[in-house]
Amino acid sequence: MTSNALIETTVHGGIHQLRMNRPPVNALDPALCTALTAVLQDAFAQGARGIVLAGGAKVFSAGLDVPYLLSLGEDRTALMQAWEAFFQTARTLATSPVPVAAAMAGHAPAGGCVLALCCDFRILAEGPFRIGLNETQVGLVAPEGIQALLARVVGPHRAERLLVAGHMPEAAQALSIGLVDELAAAEEVENRARIWLDALLQLPQEPMLETRGIARRDVIAALAPERIDLDRFVAAWTRPDTQAGLRAMLARIGK
Amino acid sequence: MTSNALIETTVHGGIHQLRMNRPPVNALDPALCTALTAVLQDAFAQGARGIVLAGGAKVFSAGLDVPYLLSLGEDRTALMQAWEAFFQTARTLATSPVPVAAAMAGHAPAGGCVLALCCDFRILAEGPFRIGLNETQVGLVAPEGIQALLARVVGPHRAERLLVAGHMPEAAQALSIGLVDELAAAEEVENRARIWLDALLQLPQEPMLETRGIARRDVIAALAPERIDLDRFVAAWTRPDTQAGLRAMLARIGK
Amino acid sequence: MTSNALIETTVHGGIHQLRMNRPPVNALDPALCTALTAVLQDAFAQGARGIVLAGGAKVFSAGLDVPYLLSLGEDRTALMQAWEAFFQTARTLATSPVPVAAAMAGHAPAGGCVLALCCDFRILAEGPFRIGLNETQVGLVAPEGIQALLARVVGPHRAERLLVAGHMPEAAQALSIGLVDELAAAEEVENRARIWLDALLQLPQEPMLETRGIARRDVIAALAPERIDLDRFVAAWTRPDTQAGLRAMLARIGK
Repeated sequence: MTSNALIETTVHGGIHQLRMNRPPVNALDPALCTALTAVLQDAFAQGARGIVLAGGAKVFSAGLDVPYLLSLGEDRTALMQAWEAFFQTARTLATSPVPVAAAMAGHAPAGGCVLALCCDFRILAEGPFRIGLNETQVGLVAPEGIQALLARVVGPHRAERLLVAGHMPEAAQALSIGLVDELAAAEEVENRARIWLDALLQLPQEPMLETRGIARRDVIAALAPERIDLDRFVAAWTRPDTQAGLRAMLARIGK
Repeated sequence: MTSNALIETTVHGGIHQLRMNRPPVNALDPALCTALTAVLQDAFAQGARGIVLAGGAKVFSAGLDVPYLLSLGEDRTALMQAWEAFFQTARTLATSPVPVAAAMAGHAPAGGCVLALCCDFRILAEGPFRIGLNETQVGLVAPEGIQALLARVVGPHRAERLLVAGHMPEAAQALSIGLVDELAAAEEVENRARIWLDALLQLPQEPMLETRGIARRDVIAALAPERIDLDRFVAAWTRPDTQAGLRAMLARIGK
Repeated sequence: MTSNALIETTVHGGIHQLRMNRPPVNALDPALCTALTAVLQDAFAQGARGIVLAGGAKVFSAGLDVPYLLSLGEDRTALMQAWEAFFQTARTLATSPVPVAAAMAGHAPAGGCVLALCCDFRILAEGPFRIGLNETQVGLVAPEGIQALLARVVGPHRAERLLVAGHMPEAAQALSIGLVDELAAAEEVENRARIWLDALLQLPQEPMLETRGIARRDVIAALAPERIDLDRFVAAWTRPDTQAGLRAMLARIGK
């Protein structure tokens, strides 16, 4: 087992289990994003045959670190760096040469959901846990490429409805619409992820990986820079209604 | 409340409720299409924040006015004008700058279904009401762009099956396959549409509308002239088997 | 009734019922593929209004004839000819000018499933029969175009999951995810296919066929040579792990 301050890594028979560990809610600041990207690249370099991406006990990841981003004010360079770090992590997951299972023991809103959508397989804790892209609720706009990742799993019209409303379904509904692939008891999600990976590791590896590569071309394509349009996203960040929405959200959750 | 002869308009807190009122079945002749387009554009100009599109008590709209179209014989200019008026209405709905809910208290065949597919959200009366694209049943061919609107909500293979057979599902099946988003008692569909819009109006408006704009690009793209190919459609209209199919349909429904 | 050694043909009122008859499992060697292509082209030339494609009692078709292909060793020309013959049959089904129903009284793995995916409608025997693309299980990679045919009916994410795992669902699950359109008792699948075709034959034929042509453009497009990439497929065939996977599969099924 190797570790760094922010990502706990455990290796079982070729499967690298990575657990984000930035309490209390794995808010995705540049440090956490950069650490996760680095640990993923290390795992690939070490010949990992599969990856489990896990998070906290009640919250997989709450998404981008909004208090941190608000603290940057209108420092466009720092804002761009923070968002670049996040999308670098998303692209590292999407382009993983081996299968990645998201093992979500709790909520996965916004950026937490985006990371899950970049994985091959999503397991969510059963119960009152929510997953989804609630950007409109806090005054943000999910870029076209991120909308495409959601549409790929739930269909274009249902994605439109979820995105426009900023609705995050609970686990049971998330399963029924295909936003997650499996539900499990919270304490079992990581085990289930390993079991799912183990089954793939029984297959002839080269053909399995090549089949996966063909099937996932559109996942990688969705994250192309022109489909994320970070300039526009960061420009929108400083709009008054966006800032108001973000501050209202923080007030609601007691920050 | 403003009105014109063919569209009743009621305004509640920014929501413009438009009810087609051309008895008995809101057959879409050029007068009704032109009136609906004009009332929609007025609503946008007046700063409407959302639109409810409603129709009759048993029939939302029966689609194009076939007796009128047959009365035009082979007058290609008049036929083109009638179809252009209809597609102008469809495009006005699809490109609405604010959300549009179709509140269907009754059947929505053919052109009635097309208008509903151009809206953001579809509520249909529960019960033996049908919605769908039954063009093949009467000797017509739904253009590629219209087929794409259906495929967007029910998937490409299910759209193919419905389109080729000209099958119009009843309300319960329409809901289960995603052709409509919600069922309600017939007398409640307009209320439910306002409630759905009210929820969107609580959100930060600019981000909600921008998210919606991205999610609905393919709806607008489907209605591009080259994907409707009206020349071909109108040329096909005068084919003997099409005319026979249309006259047989009118005989069945007692016209 | 006309016949050839490998395909039994029965004609009922414009419907040509073709039954593959290469015991024990309708393995798709060049002789069977060539015969099926020829019989289909004859049926079209004779003015068939619909096609039923049937196979064996327990196995619709087991897919490509792997023992035959292995017997070719590294004879690239012969391997290319065998695969070309198969894709020629697939394209003949996909480009059929009239509707084609797959009537599957039994299993449809791999190439058997591909032929079914090229048809308009799929009826599978209820019970423990499986259908799907299990290529990864035996060391092969389904080309992008074939993956697209599966994604068209079950959606891109579910297709990815089935393809990467090489999972073949049983009949009930195949129906629930849209991989087949209808289940019937094994002895009824051919009757049900005729009943389905009969309903389409009641419609105005030219508009029905034109609607079908528009709806199925993407099926034909998926089989374009550059999306099958036979050179790459045949090059992969002789890889050691592919050959090992194929030989292990034959050992399991007792060949």
